[in-house]
Amino acid sequence: MAQTPPSLLVVSAHAGDFVWRAGGAIAAAAQRGDRATVVCLSYGERGESASQWLAGKPLDEIKQIRRAEAQAAADALGAEIEFLDLGDYPLLESPEAVQRLVDVYRRVRPTVVLTHPLADPYNGDHPAAARMALQARVLAQAIGVANSDGSYPTKDDIIGAPPVFFFEPHQPEQSDFKPDLLLDITEAFPRKKAAMECLPAQKHMWEYYTSLAVRRGVQLTRNAGPNLGLPHETMGEAYMRYYPQVTSVLE
Amino acid sequence: MAQTPPSLLVVSAHAGDFVWRAGGAIAAAAQRGDRATVVCLSYGERGESASQWLAGKPLDEIKQIRRAEAQAAADALGAEIEFLDLGDYPLLESPEAVQRLVDVYRRVRPTVVLTHPLADPYNGDHPAAARMALQARVLAQAIGVANSDGSYPTKDDIIGAPPVFFFEPHQPEQSDFKPDLLLDITEAFPRKKAAMECLPAQKHMWEYYTSLAVRRGVQLTRNAGPNLGLPHETMGEAYMRYYPQVTSVLE
Amino acid sequence: MAQTPPSLLVVSAHAGDFVWRAGGAIAAAAQRGDRATVVCLSYGERGESASQWLAGKPLDEIKQIRRAEAQAAADALGAEIEFLDLGDYPLLESPEAVQRLVDVYRRVRPTVVLTHPLADPYNGDHPAAARMALQARVLAQAIGVANSDGSYPTKDDIIGAPPVFFFEPHQPEQSDFKPDLLLDITEAFPRKKAAMECLPAQKHMWEYYTSLAVRRGVQLTRNAGPNLGLPHETMGEAYMRYYPQVTSVLE
Amino acid sequence: MAQTPPSLLVVSAHAGDFVWRAGGAIAAAAQRGDRATVVCLSYGERGESASQWLAGKPLDEIKQIRRAEAQAAADALGAEIEFLDLGDYPLLESPEAVQRLVDVYRRVRPTVVLTHPLADPYNGDHPAAARMALQARVLAQAIGVANSDGSYPTKDDIIGAPPVFFFEPHQPEQSDFKPDLLLDITEAFPRKKAAMECLPAQKHMWEYYTSLAVRRGVQLTRNAGPNLGLPHETMGEAYMRYYPQVTSVLE
Amino acid sequence: MAQTPPSLLVVSAHAGDFVWRAGGAIAAAAQRGDRATVVCLSYGERGESASQWLAGKPLDEIKQIRRAEAQAAADALGAEIEFLDLGDYPLLESPEAVQRLVDVYRRVRPTVVLTHPLADPYNGDHPAAARMALQARVLAQAIGVANSDGSYPTKDDIIGAPPVFFFEPHQPEQSDFKPDLLLDITEAFPRKKAAMECLPAQKHMWEYYTSLAVRRGVQLTRNAGPNLGLPHETMGEAYMRYYPQVTSVLE
Amino acid sequence: MAQTPPSLLVVSAHAGDFVWRAGGAIAAAAQRGDRATVVCLSYGERGESASQWLAGKPLDEIKQIRRAEAQAAADALGAEIEFLDLGDYPLLESPEAVQRLVDVYRRVRPTVVLTHPLADPYNGDHPAAARMALQARVLAQAIGVANSDGSYPTKDDIIGAPPVFFFEPHQPEQSDFKPDLLLDITEAFPRKKAAMECLPAQKHMWEYYTSLAVRRGVQLTRNAGPNLGLPHETMGEAYMRYYPQVTSVLE
Repeated sequence: MAQTPPSLLVVSAHAGDFVWRAGGAIAAAAQRGDRATVVCLSYGERGESASQWLAGKPLDEIKQIRRAEAQAAADALGAEIEFLDLGDYPLLESPEAVQRLVDVYRRVRPTVVLTHPLADPYNGDHPAAARMALQARVLAQAIGVANSDGSYPTKDDIIGAPPVFFFEPHQPEQSDFKPDLLLDITEAFPRKKAAMECLPAQKHMWEYYTSLAVRRGVQLTRNAGPNLGLPHETMGEAYMRYYPQVTSVLE
Repeated sequence: MAQTPPSLLVVSAHAGDFVWRAGGAIAAAAQRGDRATVVCLSYGERGESASQWLAGKPLDEIKQIRRAEAQAAADALGAEIEFLDLGDYPLLESPEAVQRLVDVYRRVRPTVVLTHPLADPYNGDHPAAARMALQARVLAQAIGVANSDGSYPTKDDIIGAPPVFFFEPHQPEQSDFKPDLLLDITEAFPRKKAAMECLPAQKHMWEYYTSLAVRRGVQLTRNAGPNLGLPHETMGEAYMRYYPQVTSVLE
Repeated sequence: MAQTPPSLLVVSAHAGDFVWRAGGAIAAAAQRGDRATVVCLSYGERGESASQWLAGKPLDEIKQIRRAEAQAAADALGAEIEFLDLGDYPLLESPEAVQRLVDVYRRVRPTVVLTHPLADPYNGDHPAAARMALQARVLAQAIGVANSDGSYPTKDDIIGAPPVFFFEPHQPEQSDFKPDLLLDITEAFPRKKAAMECLPAQKHMWEYYTSLAVRRGVQLTRNAGPNLGLPHETMGEAYMRYYPQVTSVLE
Repeated sequence: MAQTPPSLLVVSAHAGDFVWRAGGAIAAAAQRGDRATVVCLSYGERGESASQWLAGKPLDEIKQIRRAEAQAAADALGAEIEFLDLGDYPLLESPEAVQRLVDVYRRVRPTVVLTHPLADPYNGDHPAAARMALQARVLAQAIGVANSDGSYPTKDDIIGAPPVFFFEPHQPEQSDFKPDLLLDITEAFPRKKAAMECLPAQKHMWEYYTSLAVRRGVQLTRNAGPNLGLPHETMGEAYMRYYPQVTSVLE
Repeated sequence: MAQTPPSLLVVSAHAGDFVWRAGGAIAAAAQRGDRATVVCLSYGERGESASQWLAGKPLDEIKQIRRAEAQAAADALGAEIEFLDLGDYPLLESPEAVQRLVDVYRRVRPTVVLTHPLADPYNGDHPAAARMALQARVLAQAIGVANSDGSYPTKDDIIGAPPVFFFEPHQPEQSDFKPDLLLDITEAFPRKKAAMECLPAQKHMWEYYTSLAVRRGVQLTRNAGPNLGLPHETMGEAYMRYYPQVTSVLE
Repeated sequence: MAQTPPSLLVVSAHAGDFVWRAGGAIAAAAQRGDRATVVCLSYGERGESASQWLAGKPLDEIKQIRRAEAQAAADALGAEIEFLDLGDYPLLESPEAVQRLVDVYRRVRPTVVLTHPLADPYNGDHPAAARMALQARVLAQAIGVANSDGSYPTKDDIIGAPPVFFFEPHQPEQSDFKPDLLLDITEAFPRKKAAMECLPAQKHMWEYYTSLAVRRGVQLTRNAGPNLGLPHETMGEAYMRYYPQVTSVLE
């Protein structure tokens, strides 16, 4: 059977989320030569751009700034990026938005999907993004669900069922986030750092997410089993699986 | 760093448990050439040998019968087997029993551990076995915890932190068992079938666990992602992780 | 006080769901002479009709095929069936759809309600159907909630609070489904089998749900208490209660 | 098949627990002519007899007082009562205590078992009693588990698998108690009242548990379905099931 | 830093909810001299006004009656009250309704927010109210989210992050309500009683919620720690926190 | 009523636990002039002293070293410290150990208790310590539970019911730890730092727990409500409540 080539799809509510929470996974995929695609549902123009609003900038300019930053960060990670411009605060769910994501799934043909977890008491846009990403993933598998242009997919157009990983929210315990998987991002971390530095308005986050990567790295070495011989400077990112893992080897 | 060679350790409350619940994982490991070791804490002589008791056999003979069956099943799977003979119904937890398991861990040096989940409303011996297996795993890592003979381990004697998987209980939902991982045991299934046939007193279980393998296989293909191209006759076993997975690739 | 005559209402997202998951309960009710009504919110025309789409059939024809199959299955079970034709993949929630269900509740006057559980990572239509079924059940009890034609109900038109049972989803553990109740469907099973055979496009499901009935039957006998004297060939279906049971005898 | 005659077994940590929490269920069983047996694991002599200690009474006299009160309450309910005198605060778990409960199960042959829930942050004796009651219930089913006198049971001596209900703890939400079942005890309530009045040292509890019965009764009528026509003065007790219900009719 | 003056905001789905569930907290705040504001999203005109419908009153008159009662109850508690008149049964969520709540938050500047918990199997309007209250609370903090009139807030107009407490639903265990906090309302109770008596159509609730206050008061004294020296007649209300408490003293 | 003077009791499985996890709370209490008492159940001589074992030191010397370090750390925090020397890896639960803790509770008369949470997959000694601390707290309240010397307490000797807080484990999400309360330890942090520096063998932990205090501080300011005006350099510790909070003001 023909293998689908590796393809990582990241569905991000706002322009910066994919950098802080999944930058390591994205960069690692790109470094391995895998395709990596980020979809930003909004620019985070209302809810995550306080400094620009305080500086008196108008809405359109803020959206341009956030878009340029996200583009630069995606470049630093080695990923493609698309912007759906659905608006934020609130990010409204709609059949039309889900349909656009169905088109993305069928075009990108992801072998791995990353998105927000389903709970976040601090930001309702994050679960809304996750619900749309999950619904579109199911719809894109169905041959009876049309594309945006009204045409129907062929058997080759529909997708399989890629695994979904939730990336770590800002306040994990309050968001019912319990890591199922600790990802070694040591080699990818310089790219993640470069991407974070594309987001100058949130400079205090650079240190915060570096420190988190160290902490997840410490846990990673503690959970790493008998052999891995991981060095002390291991950096990590935490993920939750939404579906059970499928494998032919327990490890 | 020197790699620990692959070594699977299975801690089973009674003589038959490892066959029904983890026979596929054990056989698959053996087929790959990995070491596989089963530790039976008891023979299941009181709680899982009703037909022998009804036939009027004495306790010692029942234990011999169960031991011989378990030995044959382990042979069929390609695994070594040890018997701690701690008694069942109830399987009592004790520091001495845990110490014996510490010795096993240090000798076997597992890279993967399988045991029962921590809840089972139908059989208290199963969680008791899991608690001892988990406690011994932690103690065996400590250089300050002596061996059974009173000697202290060297730095090379203590073990790392192998991942632990809970195998599927007989009534999964009642035991808070939710699969985190579906293992493809298609190639290993003939060995599992041969091992089940070493346990003639529970003939009705042969069909039951074959049917379960089919069902877990169906779920496995449904969760298998875009590429795997799994055939319809896929057989599976379900597992829960007790610790987060550690990896350098999301898949 | 006048007794409401027994009346079973089943709210099903797609045309086939009620057969696989609740066919035994429906047939058993009909065999006892109770009224049984199935409401299909959609035909499953997009999400559960892959073989027809692959055969190149147009949407309307697929809907007709699914409708005819569901009608035949309901006949085999002994149930009435209604189709709301709300569309699937996605099944959209709306006040209008809920209002139509309010009318159904007031007309059918159910003494027992069956529907999907509130979580299903594999199919978002199922929880959407459950949410609408539950909301309509509450609204139909209120004398201040009008009927679809704008008229207000009398005291006799509104309904009481029938118990709700969730039937078993395709992947129970992933859908947070833990059985609260195991239903003996041994006598009803031939009708369920006949109903399943009205759905020829999903022939592999016949065996799957027969095997599940056997497994739930085995669990049923294991949980059946000291007296029931259930034979080995007992067939079962599993259900979750959404509200506490009310009874005057513990049993 | 010969029916086991109805027999209710209540395992109570202290001398008063069965009255407050399950007095309605016990009296209702007795009123129906069923056998009802209470086993008090301790007299509650240390932890629930503060007024006697304050009055300067010695331990033995306190035990006699509590025993006489519990005997009178059991008489008022129509139940037999046995005292294992295992000590309280703490109630220690031991293989010997479990063995004595195995004997009780085989003698009483319960068709329904009531005991404490498995969590109680306010009183560790309650979960300890529940763990022993549950373990003994499993052991009593095994033909390979001997009686206290060393003899082995025959096929007719072992018991089936009676359903287990947890009765309501004093602080339900803190003890993870969520009612699965609301029991109508309206007719039995006068006997429960009489039994409560056998416990004069806890007079304030009479009103507390009367008020609770009213509240559970209100919930019962709200959850009672379309027919039951329950009067406003319905009294109730709440229970949780530990095992799934088995039935041939959904109701 | 300038302190925000104490200001309690209560978001209530229907006209009576705030009285039964949070009347003590509201009265206590008013008695301390704090500002207290209730927002009723609907009058409960359809779902909680059965006696008026039975008396044949038209919709508008019922809304007037409920409004007058709620106004009187708020007066008795010492609170301001606003009515959004969004309709009930069902209370529909919409961006417009959330926007109106954003305006309320920015005007009232709450230091504490009370609302319904996020689950209620008996009444879907309650969770809908909570979801809107929580979403508006987040949006009102963002400088990029406009006011209803299209103007943008200044830095001084946006709010901080007030703690949110869920008040107790009518059937707490079924609604996943587990008290995190027990509030002493002994001194405020006379006002709560007076407010309850402003709702004559639900006279049976007066006794019900008085009895609940006694029960929560008993639990309060049992959990009150070594010093509080609470009298037996303590009255209480139970609350759940949605966010972690922030403090500089453990107590 | 006479107030119990503030008294903080910390029950720690090993000699270092109280420093890393609760050092801020202890120092803050001492700084306010409250009594603070730490009870170390073991020295952590086997499980948390790897470097000493590697250096070839004998057991007794290791215990002395750990004791001296813990004494110095307690001094730095301003707390008294007691050592029960129960042994670690495993820390065995026993009635005798619980009795010794009962004596401590009656002597120290805590108004706040801190201990480990009830789950920790990485270290079974921690939950064992928590179970004993919780059991002793209940027993110490009972007038019928004797002291270690066999004498019975008077009414004045028994204690009230102090609140219990679980401090943060090393891998919080894996230990089902979700913060209910964020404690501001900014002023106390220099003392905590000094105490950490008394534990030279775990130097890498100094940075780790400083970084954690920063992170919990960031979350604290994010959850701090509208007024607190907390500076950016706020340091925090996270806690879970085991019992509901009791208060007369919502805040």
